[in-house]
Amino acid sequence: MAVGNIDFPEMMNVSGIKLGSTNAGIKQTERDDLLVIEMAETATCAGVFTQNAFCAAPVYFAKEHLQKNPRWLLINSGNANAGTGEQGILDTGECCSALADMTDGEARQVLPFSTGVIGENLPVEKIAKALPQALHNLQESHWQQAALAIMTTDTFAKGVSLVIEIKGQLVTLTGISKGAGMIQPNMATMLGFVATDAKIGQSLLQQCLSEAVEQSFNRITVDGDTSTNDACILMASGKSTAPEITPNSDSYAVFSKAVLDVCKRLAELIVRDGEGATKLMRILVEQALDDKEAVRVGKTVAHSPLVKTAFFASDPNWGRILAAVGRSEIKQLDLQKIEIYLDDVCIVKHGGRAVSYTEALGQQVMDKEEITIRIVLGRGRAIQEVLTCDLSYDYVRINAEYRT
Amino acid sequence: MAVGNIDFPEMMNVSGIKLGSTNAGIKQTERDDLLVIEMAETATCAGVFTQNAFCAAPVYFAKEHLQKNPRWLLINSGNANAGTGEQGILDTGECCSALADMTDGEARQVLPFSTGVIGENLPVEKIAKALPQALHNLQESHWQQAALAIMTTDTFAKGVSLVIEIKGQLVTLTGISKGAGMIQPNMATMLGFVATDAKIGQSLLQQCLSEAVEQSFNRITVDGDTSTNDACILMASGKSTAPEITPNSDSYAVFSKAVLDVCKRLAELIVRDGEGATKLMRILVEQALDDKEAVRVGKTVAHSPLVKTAFFASDPNWGRILAAVGRSEIKQLDLQKIEIYLDDVCIVKHGGRAVSYTEALGQQVMDKEEITIRIVLGRGRAIQEVLTCDLSYDYVRINAEYRT
Repeated sequence: MAVGNIDFPEMMNVSGIKLGSTNAGIKQTERDDLLVIEMAETATCAGVFTQNAFCAAPVYFAKEHLQKNPRWLLINSGNANAGTGEQGILDTGECCSALADMTDGEARQVLPFSTGVIGENLPVEKIAKALPQALHNLQESHWQQAALAIMTTDTFAKGVSLVIEIKGQLVTLTGISKGAGMIQPNMATMLGFVATDAKIGQSLLQQCLSEAVEQSFNRITVDGDTSTNDACILMASGKSTAPEITPNSDSYAVFSKAVLDVCKRLAELIVRDGEGATKLMRILVEQALDDKEAVRVGKTVAHSPLVKTAFFASDPNWGRILAAVGRSEIKQLDLQKIEIYLDDVCIVKHGGRAVSYTEALGQQVMDKEEITIRIVLGRGRAIQEVLTCDLSYDYVRINAEYRT
Repeated sequence: MAVGNIDFPEMMNVSGIKLGSTNAGIKQTERDDLLVIEMAETATCAGVFTQNAFCAAPVYFAKEHLQKNPRWLLINSGNANAGTGEQGILDTGECCSALADMTDGEARQVLPFSTGVIGENLPVEKIAKALPQALHNLQESHWQQAALAIMTTDTFAKGVSLVIEIKGQLVTLTGISKGAGMIQPNMATMLGFVATDAKIGQSLLQQCLSEAVEQSFNRITVDGDTSTNDACILMASGKSTAPEITPNSDSYAVFSKAVLDVCKRLAELIVRDGEGATKLMRILVEQALDDKEAVRVGKTVAHSPLVKTAFFASDPNWGRILAAVGRSEIKQLDLQKIEIYLDDVCIVKHGGRAVSYTEALGQQVMDKEEITIRIVLGRGRAIQEVLTCDLSYDYVRINAEYRT
């Protein structure tokens, strides 16, 4: 049910980053559901996490351990270990310790992540029992297996890989993500893991990731529900022959743009796999007073069930877009200045239907699988884009049947 | 598809308020789609209107004319006359003038209301041609016909009628409403028309209505979409034998409570008729710091597609409720203090599943058609209730097929 033809791309290995997955039986399917990522000793690591007040047990640990030179990421799908109270904390702690014991590391060097159903206890024994196999499978080439292992309601594995040049030396960035529902990341996303062989200090790496996530994962929404388990991690192994990336340098500009590209692409893949999605909508808000206002208008339109169902029906029901812009709580919005476009077709001008607009023109755009809704506010110079998908029967089916 | 068994109640006439409806052919169905309400010369009238920045043409007129001793309400369904720019303004003006001409009144004495599809021009000629028949049908007893005439995607006519005693004299309150989708009223609602024979000055009547709407129509949501045409009108004919209601009097207390009761009931009927609704959820937020915070938590839960689809599936997926509370952007929420109940069943305590909770207990509640979600925040003393309904296949069907 994904929007677009999505082939898993060729994934470049990142020197110093190994991945190993296995089936721990958490989900009772034949797919792998447990993943270990091992970082070289030279690696630095940055992370951003959900702002949901009820963050899941693993998020507490990952935030804490991030400051302690982590070496391993331990990720399971099929169970979110969220809403599990004290038991959840104990369970995550045990999993970290189990991995540490098997690797001669320490529990504080393990960043744990869980994704799946909320409110069920983590099957610690199953995980501990499966860990040796995951460790046995550690390879730099196992990105696709890793992307498959972290999926829940996802219908395809999500990966991006690119190579940039820094001071004449090649630097690789390779990342995976998962997510299809409960998607309105706030300061972070569903799970995203990006690795590079660049040399870069932890605090600069963190700055780079935080900025990239704000403009990528934090600009997508499937259903407006912010998960309890969102996390995005950027690992830098330092194994590239390129010199260290320093603040405010040209190298940083090149590197941070590449990180943003990877994050944007991974975020877009999540929307393309939005639960039940048949269409991808890019909501481009222009001439806003500031970024915040632009994002607010974009998200209000993106969350409107009426807009989303109209797009599902390929119905150019522009009145619903207009109504959503109108309820965005933007002060002193001047209707006369607002213009709305579906791709290149102007649908609204001067607060009403554009004179040039015809249903036939609107229908032509709506029949496409990817559509840009461009909203021009006529108030300032800020531009922001929000990505979302439509609301279909299958969204209801998937979420009504999730636990059955 | 309504929630509950809803019979249209016996509607008491309100002396001095007459209603006449007819079929103007706006909707191309056999149902009436045009309604005139005539108020006695003694009447006062109060109104609240949508806060959507794109308010529809009739809303501009109704707001303006409300201050000019209105005598008539002119309501059409099938066309919202919203997003119609200058033409919409001209069209509404013409309709007001047409009615004024036929009644020897003035256009400024007419409050116009439109509801239906956005972005199509109002068929002024059809309306003008049908007006004489609507006027011919004016009767104090035509409340049910009126309730039917204002319906759009509604599946049943919505009415409430009650009698109170003021200083030993009877005062009647009778009202109708419409609405099933694009429902998250903000300072007003879909269309609601309430009449009473009480004697009460305009400014006190306005105060009474504003307070009642804030606690009734502004506490319901079907899909989070605020309409461009929301309006609620309270008419007081002054024909009752009860003495005039004055500020801060016992009479005002009795009267305003009755107005609130009527508004609450009319608002609840809208949620029961929510597009595709199979369940009614009362979200009761207790021990909030203030009302605003309580409403914010209630609405966040009420708007969560994941919560709504879980209720559609009768799935006691309390993790989704917890996640929605967690993303309500309440500062310094202490998870340890939060409790969540489904009816009397405690599902969450101390940030995790309550020890006493079993799926069987949760399932028992979820199988009901009406469910209270009680969220105890442990922060203060404010209590607010938000009403909503579930999200079903039929919501998608209704809104994907609306214009086809």
